[in-house]
Amino acid sequence: MRIGELGEFDLIDRLLKAAGTPKIEPPLGPGDDAAALRPSPGMLLLATCDSQVEGHHFRLGSISGEQLGQRLAAVNLSDIAAMGGKPRWALASLILPTSLELEFLEQLYRGLADVLHHYECELVGGNVAAGETLILDLTLMGEVLPEQLLKRSGAHPGDVILVTGELGASAAGRAALEHGLKNAEAEELIRIHHSPEPRVAAGQLIAAEGQATAAIDVSDGFAQDLGHICSASGVGADVTEASLPIGKATRTVVNALSLDPIETALNGGEDYELICTVPPSASLLLIRHIREAIGLEMTRVGTITAGSGCRLLRPDGSRVALPQKGWQHFGA
Amino acid sequence: MRIGELGEFDLIDRLLKAAGTPKIEPPLGPGDDAAALRPSPGMLLLATCDSQVEGHHFRLGSISGEQLGQRLAAVNLSDIAAMGGKPRWALASLILPTSLELEFLEQLYRGLADVLHHYECELVGGNVAAGETLILDLTLMGEVLPEQLLKRSGAHPGDVILVTGELGASAAGRAALEHGLKNAEAEELIRIHHSPEPRVAAGQLIAAEGQATAAIDVSDGFAQDLGHICSASGVGADVTEASLPIGKATRTVVNALSLDPIETALNGGEDYELICTVPPSASLLLIRHIREAIGLEMTRVGTITAGSGCRLLRPDGSRVALPQKGWQHFGA
Repeated sequence: MRIGELGEFDLIDRLLKAAGTPKIEPPLGPGDDAAALRPSPGMLLLATCDSQVEGHHFRLGSISGEQLGQRLAAVNLSDIAAMGGKPRWALASLILPTSLELEFLEQLYRGLADVLHHYECELVGGNVAAGETLILDLTLMGEVLPEQLLKRSGAHPGDVILVTGELGASAAGRAALEHGLKNAEAEELIRIHHSPEPRVAAGQLIAAEGQATAAIDVSDGFAQDLGHICSASGVGADVTEASLPIGKATRTVVNALSLDPIETALNGGEDYELICTVPPSASLLLIRHIREAIGLEMTRVGTITAGSGCRLLRPDGSRVALPQKGWQHFGA
Repeated sequence: MRIGELGEFDLIDRLLKAAGTPKIEPPLGPGDDAAALRPSPGMLLLATCDSQVEGHHFRLGSISGEQLGQRLAAVNLSDIAAMGGKPRWALASLILPTSLELEFLEQLYRGLADVLHHYECELVGGNVAAGETLILDLTLMGEVLPEQLLKRSGAHPGDVILVTGELGASAAGRAALEHGLKNAEAEELIRIHHSPEPRVAAGQLIAAEGQATAAIDVSDGFAQDLGHICSASGVGADVTEASLPIGKATRTVVNALSLDPIETALNGGEDYELICTVPPSASLLLIRHIREAIGLEMTRVGTITAGSGCRLLRPDGSRVALPQKGWQHFGA
C-alpha cells in the first residue's frame, strides 16, 4: 500500500505500532501536542538533530527501510556519544512522498526504534508532512552529568589524539556500492556504511573516566572533524599517517577500486567513530579500560600541538598540511 | 549570493550571525555536537517538532523570508502553548536547495530568532543539508510544572468549550492569497496567515489557573482538533454554530470569494488558537482573567457531552454531525 492511500492519523497509528511499545513509559509520549518528559535531577540536557535526505545521504532501492531507520538513529546517537551523554528521547520528523510504500516506512520505523531501544532511548513524538522526496529528520535528546560533558574546546598542546575503531570503512562501503563491487569485504563495508554503530558506550566511558579534554564524532571526515577540535580549542595537531586505523576489508576494497586508503581514512567521512584528546599520562589507561569494558580498540593517531593547523607526518619523514576534503554540504 | 556558493560552515556562521546573540546563554549552544542545556529543577520537559515544506505549507515568492521564519517559530510555539508550557530552546533543521538566495535565508533566520526571542526562547542548535526543495523543521523544547501540564485527555461531560481569538482568519488569508484578492481586509488576513501569533501567554495563564481539563491548539482545523480532545478524553461535544468567533475581516473576505464562513471557521485550520475545556463554574472567571491579563478574548463555543462524536447546533435548531474536513496530509 502506498502511504497516499492512508490518512495522516492512520499513518501515524501504523508507525507507532511499527515502533513497538516503549520499554520505559515517558510521562506523556506521542498523541498530544508535545511529549512531556521528566529530566533527571542535576543532569544537563543534550539536544541534537540530523537528517537523512534521499539522493544525498541515501538512495532508495539500494538501502532497506530497516537499514535506513538504523542509520537515522545512529548518526544522531553518535552526536550524543561525542558529548559523553546517555541518549533518552527522540522525535522523528518525516517528509514523505505519497508514493512511498507503507511497508518500507514501517520497516524504517522498526529499524529506528530497534536501535533507539538498544540504547534505552524512547521515540516520544514527531511529525509527518507530505513532500517530493523522502527526508528523515531526527531530534535526539540525552543527558550528561555537568562535570562529564565532553566538548570540542578543551584540547591542550601535548594531548594525545585517540580514535575509536577504524577509519574509512563507511566511505569504502559507499564506494563499493557506487561501483557495484560485490564480494565479502564489499558487503561487510556496505553494511557498515548503511548502519554504522554509534559509539554510545565508549562516549560514556570516556566521559566517566574524566581525563578527555575534547571529543567529537567523525561524520564529515577525520581530518575535518579533528580540525573542528583544533579550531574550537585554539590548537594544532600532528597526525601520523602510519598509525591511522584502516581495516583489512577497507584496504582490500579501496585497492580494488584504485582509491587511496589514506585519503579514504582521512576524508571519507560517516565513520561515526569518536576522536578524543587526553593528556599523555592518561591515554594507555583509557585505551585499556575501553578495551576491557566493551572490547573496542582505540588507536593513538597523533598529538595536539601549540599554534594552529593540522599536519600529516608521512612514512618518509616529511610533514604536509593535513588534506581536508571531507564532506561539506553546498559545495564551495 | 546563492547558498551553493558558500561552504557549509560559512553558511552556518552567516545564519548564526543573522539569528543574533542569545539574550540568555545556554550552558553550551551551537558549535558542538549537541547543545547542552540546563533544565529547571522539578519541571517537565516538553518537546515537539513541526515542519514547513515548500509547495505544501508555503510558496516561495508569496511569503517573505522573515514571515516564513516567524511562521516556523509560531507553529511550534503553539504546540508548547497548548501544553501550558514556557518555551525554552529550539533546534532548526534546514533542507536547502543550493539555488536559494542567502539573503532570503538570513531574513528567515532573523524572523525565526525574533519570534523565539520574543518568547524568551533560544535557538541552540540545528543542522543544514542540501535538498531539492526548501524544508524547514523546527524542534522546540519547553518546560511546565507537572501539575500544570495541559493534556488532550481530561475533558469531562458538562465542561464548557472555550476558544481563544478568532477562527477562520488564517484560512481566509490563504484563500485571499490563492485568489489574488487585494484589499485592506485581505492584506490583514494574509499577514495573519503568514505569521500567526502563537497563544503562549494564554496557554501559560490557562495552565496556571488550574481549571482547564483539556487543551489543544487549532492547527488542522477547529472541528478536527476538538475531535482530538474528544477521542483522547472519551467524550463528545456540542458546538453552537452562532457562537463561533468569526471576525469581520474574515466574513468580508470569505463572502467576496463566495466561501462559507462557518465551513472556513470549522475546517480552515492553521488558526493556532487554543481550545480548552473547563468546568462551567470556572469558565467566566477564566475568560475574565485572560482578558484582563493579556487583552485576549476567549469565546464559549460549546459543551462537552457524554458519549462520542461532535455535533453542530444550527441556528434553525437542527443538530448535525460536525463536518470534519480539516487538513490531513496524505489525502485519504
